[in-house]
Amino acid sequence: MKLGMVGLGKMGYNLVLNLMENGHEVVANDINEEAMQKIKAEGAEIAADYKAMVDMLPKPRVVWLMIPAGDLIDQVIEKFTPFLEEGDILIDGGNSNYKDTLRRAEKLSAAGIQFMDVGTSGGMEGARNGACTMIGGDAEVFAHVEQIFKDISIEKGYLYTGKVGSGHFLKMVHNGIEYGMMQAIAEGFEILEKSPFDYDYKEVSRVWNHGSVIRSWLMELMENAFSKEPKLESIKGVMHSSGEGKWTVETALDLQTAAPVIALSLMMRYRSLEDDTFTGKVVAALRNEFGGHAVERKED
Amino acid sequence: MKLGMVGLGKMGYNLVLNLMENGHEVVANDINEEAMQKIKAEGAEIAADYKAMVDMLPKPRVVWLMIPAGDLIDQVIEKFTPFLEEGDILIDGGNSNYKDTLRRAEKLSAAGIQFMDVGTSGGMEGARNGACTMIGGDAEVFAHVEQIFKDISIEKGYLYTGKVGSGHFLKMVHNGIEYGMMQAIAEGFEILEKSPFDYDYKEVSRVWNHGSVIRSWLMELMENAFSKEPKLESIKGVMHSSGEGKWTVETALDLQTAAPVIALSLMMRYRSLEDDTFTGKVVAALRNEFGGHAVERKED
Amino acid sequence: MKLGMVGLGKMGYNLVLNLMENGHEVVANDINEEAMQKIKAEGAEIAADYKAMVDMLPKPRVVWLMIPAGDLIDQVIEKFTPFLEEGDILIDGGNSNYKDTLRRAEKLSAAGIQFMDVGTSGGMEGARNGACTMIGGDAEVFAHVEQIFKDISIEKGYLYTGKVGSGHFLKMVHNGIEYGMMQAIAEGFEILEKSPFDYDYKEVSRVWNHGSVIRSWLMELMENAFSKEPKLESIKGVMHSSGEGKWTVETALDLQTAAPVIALSLMMRYRSLEDDTFTGKVVAALRNEFGGHAVERKED
Amino acid sequence: MKLGMVGLGKMGYNLVLNLMENGHEVVANDINEEAMQKIKAEGAEIAADYKAMVDMLPKPRVVWLMIPAGDLIDQVIEKFTPFLEEGDILIDGGNSNYKDTLRRAEKLSAAGIQFMDVGTSGGMEGARNGACTMIGGDAEVFAHVEQIFKDISIEKGYLYTGKVGSGHFLKMVHNGIEYGMMQAIAEGFEILEKSPFDYDYKEVSRVWNHGSVIRSWLMELMENAFSKEPKLESIKGVMHSSGEGKWTVETALDLQTAAPVIALSLMMRYRSLEDDTFTGKVVAALRNEFGGHAVERKED
Repeated sequence: MKLGMVGLGKMGYNLVLNLMENGHEVVANDINEEAMQKIKAEGAEIAADYKAMVDMLPKPRVVWLMIPAGDLIDQVIEKFTPFLEEGDILIDGGNSNYKDTLRRAEKLSAAGIQFMDVGTSGGMEGARNGACTMIGGDAEVFAHVEQIFKDISIEKGYLYTGKVGSGHFLKMVHNGIEYGMMQAIAEGFEILEKSPFDYDYKEVSRVWNHGSVIRSWLMELMENAFSKEPKLESIKGVMHSSGEGKWTVETALDLQTAAPVIALSLMMRYRSLEDDTFTGKVVAALRNEFGGHAVERKED
Repeated sequence: MKLGMVGLGKMGYNLVLNLMENGHEVVANDINEEAMQKIKAEGAEIAADYKAMVDMLPKPRVVWLMIPAGDLIDQVIEKFTPFLEEGDILIDGGNSNYKDTLRRAEKLSAAGIQFMDVGTSGGMEGARNGACTMIGGDAEVFAHVEQIFKDISIEKGYLYTGKVGSGHFLKMVHNGIEYGMMQAIAEGFEILEKSPFDYDYKEVSRVWNHGSVIRSWLMELMENAFSKEPKLESIKGVMHSSGEGKWTVETALDLQTAAPVIALSLMMRYRSLEDDTFTGKVVAALRNEFGGHAVERKED
Repeated sequence: MKLGMVGLGKMGYNLVLNLMENGHEVVANDINEEAMQKIKAEGAEIAADYKAMVDMLPKPRVVWLMIPAGDLIDQVIEKFTPFLEEGDILIDGGNSNYKDTLRRAEKLSAAGIQFMDVGTSGGMEGARNGACTMIGGDAEVFAHVEQIFKDISIEKGYLYTGKVGSGHFLKMVHNGIEYGMMQAIAEGFEILEKSPFDYDYKEVSRVWNHGSVIRSWLMELMENAFSKEPKLESIKGVMHSSGEGKWTVETALDLQTAAPVIALSLMMRYRSLEDDTFTGKVVAALRNEFGGHAVERKED
Repeated sequence: MKLGMVGLGKMGYNLVLNLMENGHEVVANDINEEAMQKIKAEGAEIAADYKAMVDMLPKPRVVWLMIPAGDLIDQVIEKFTPFLEEGDILIDGGNSNYKDTLRRAEKLSAAGIQFMDVGTSGGMEGARNGACTMIGGDAEVFAHVEQIFKDISIEKGYLYTGKVGSGHFLKMVHNGIEYGMMQAIAEGFEILEKSPFDYDYKEVSRVWNHGSVIRSWLMELMENAFSKEPKLESIKGVMHSSGEGKWTVETALDLQTAAPVIALSLMMRYRSLEDDTFTGKVVAALRNEFGGHAVERKED
């Protein structure tokens, strides 16, 4: 199949290579001219702008957006729409909030354009050699493009998840689970670190990956990490987050669902961003007020 | 009534004054000679040792222990027991773990000595001018000493809670609730502090104490604290704890009770004791491993 | 001052009585004709519609909306705006989300209309005899209407909180704290209920309100509740919620704030809405898969 | 090596088969005569009592206890000790609390008996065909018996963890992590279940196991579970627990460690044991008291 790819960042670039290796033809576009020339050298066609891309693609056009989630998606869709025709297919492969996806799908639907949402897990390595993809959208449209997903995904690693929005929703929940699993693993190692025993964490990760109930890819990554630094000495425990954990908790609230583990995993990340907290000041002040407990003072 | 008081710390000293003001006679003892002389000057009799104290008290003797919880209680009981007779009454007014209280009561019971456990809330101020007391022990024994508790407590501020252990248990749960209420208040102020608005926290505490649902003594203390420092600038947000919150959570686990708010209030205190966490390092390392997310490094 | 009141529900009706008792003149409106006649009998003027109300008020008009939060506020504002002139003042006294308040204020500002947001705590009783009010809006506008708030609030129970939105924001956080305090109290009583002791909860609430650290209005309400039913026998433990706890958690997430106690208080409410959970099914199924642990089956 | 096995339950029986298959000789004992005859038919020697077992083993004796954790271990050790000599080795392969292990090791050490603690993960299947084992005890003693663990464990699936107690401690933390991972997965599926989409959970589990970040053995088990019942229709969401999650949380508290995810995973299990909660009654009653919110009543 011949399709367009907008966005040649780490994920998009690797996806193009993956697609071409599987016999697909790709017309690529990126605001970065260097990335364009590089992918051209790999065998892709390049399009200077969206109109050019559309002209180079057979009907119905299939265009894959692999750009950062957020307003940029809206801007690109806005610019793209005038060149598309009824029946053309737009795929958002990024980590978009499913609510945005629903909104975009409705708008594009009015113009007769098919919108598909693809949640992708597995990182750059997956994008290049076989990702895990969760695909929402119209069932007939999916049938038309299924071969793409079959080819770029690891074996058994793609799933048509139902109507539009369901792919991004599923990827969001996947990440929420990921937050919880990571925090659980991390708490376990913190307990080990404070224990009266002296464990070799690389060895612990290794043994837990062989026959135990908690064997997992994350635990394999722990072994990698500890093999680089036995106690992660140089790393600061600052836990950033990129949105999907927050969306998962917000969605849980919208659905009146108790998801304490995912919520706390997120909140402990927020807590890690701070050296000191106002919460702590208030509690310390209260203890001082009612019990005369000494407060620690900041040094001048 | 004439009774003995062992321990003339902040709480014990004020209790003696309170007792005497209400017409009781007190024989006091403390390892600190200065405190002994001071209370003597206030009108108490003093006893050089436990034997002396017992000799100075009418039968059945009533001896109140107001000393730090833990092994010290066991040691004092051990030393005291030989001088006591069947029917004498020993009162533990400290923040003892109710499990220790049950164990001590059983042991003393074998020697015919009555053990009572008194949870006391209200701080030094309460000890001096009217505390809140929760009293466990034998009902008949309580009837014998009830007047003491009636006199030293604030009006309506004493309660016979049932069999031995129930007083300390109730005080423990009181403190568990206190942890949760304090953390709730503190989280609220942290949200205000990070909000786009510019609140005067002293005024906020004040208004919340007049007519709102969350009016409470703790909120009054907030007003005091903020009147000293508008943003608690000099206070470090380190939240220490003294045992009863932990016991409450352990008890909840023993009783298979979900007490997430009390548990988290305690755990956020533990979290506040650390600048950096191993949990944070592990999560940061994992994010780096699977997603190439940058980790923050400690400066050399 | 002569002002308009839109909405004669429990809160609005009592506010009108409160206002009139304090010497204010009120022009009232409600879709419920019966409520209109009733308040007329109490001495208020009534207006058949918004136009009529505006005509009956001196300039600048002061109109207080006391209607359910949500779309209804937008609808009423929409209908009201055509009759208002530059400088007129609209007050939203309901539990609106502060984000909606900011949006409405911006829109009304374009029409020269002043918007004020008032968070009100204290229930019907407060509305009638002295509420706790938190008022956001333009400082000069506040000065113009301050006397109203002074009069309807309990002594020291009103606060000008700053620019528009700050009143509803503060009320939202107030309710978030309230969720946490209530859950803390409730967990404490659950631990007592499962304890090996036999407490009289009415008495426990009573003693905790006299001299203890956790004395509070909520604990007074506990005493009321337990005086009606010693073990709350007839009440189902279903904990509904009305929005502000959820908004507080969402706001905490937006501000990257760890607020575990407020978040968990909310989530335990959601949990209480369900007899059985899918979470529980999944964990039970997993335990069965890896450990052969028996699962409980639903009866047919 | 020739060693003794006390306990022929699911785990012990399979371990004996595993040991014999790897060329070890086993003298087995169990209170169940049938199990004894069965394992004899498989080729093991059987010992009628502990004395007989000890007489049948070469010095130093190696005896593996595979019996339920708790007092039973103490009783068996008590009975066994008189027959053992200095240098003999006792192995506790059960899920004992590491504090009990430390206590037992100290007592046995006084008698010159070596005590080893082995945490075993992987279930019956692992016991039979290759477990994951974490082994604490004296390093020289471990060297003497290492071949046993090498043989019964899956490749790379055994680890000498250091001094006595460290094996059971590590297994305890492993289970704590397991609780957190399971709850995270379960919360994710509950969010899916309440979502506006219609997912096939077996397919979701399958795709998440191919290339995604959360691929794990637990997710494979989800696929098994959902393949039996698409929505786990017949399973009640009652989540039992067997002690190690609780010990992990207690240990976290002892070490002043914030482990919110593991703690909440445990507490949600406790919550699932109840149809209604006193916590819920209290909050419902409070809402009714201050806001007039209706409470749901139990039907008569």
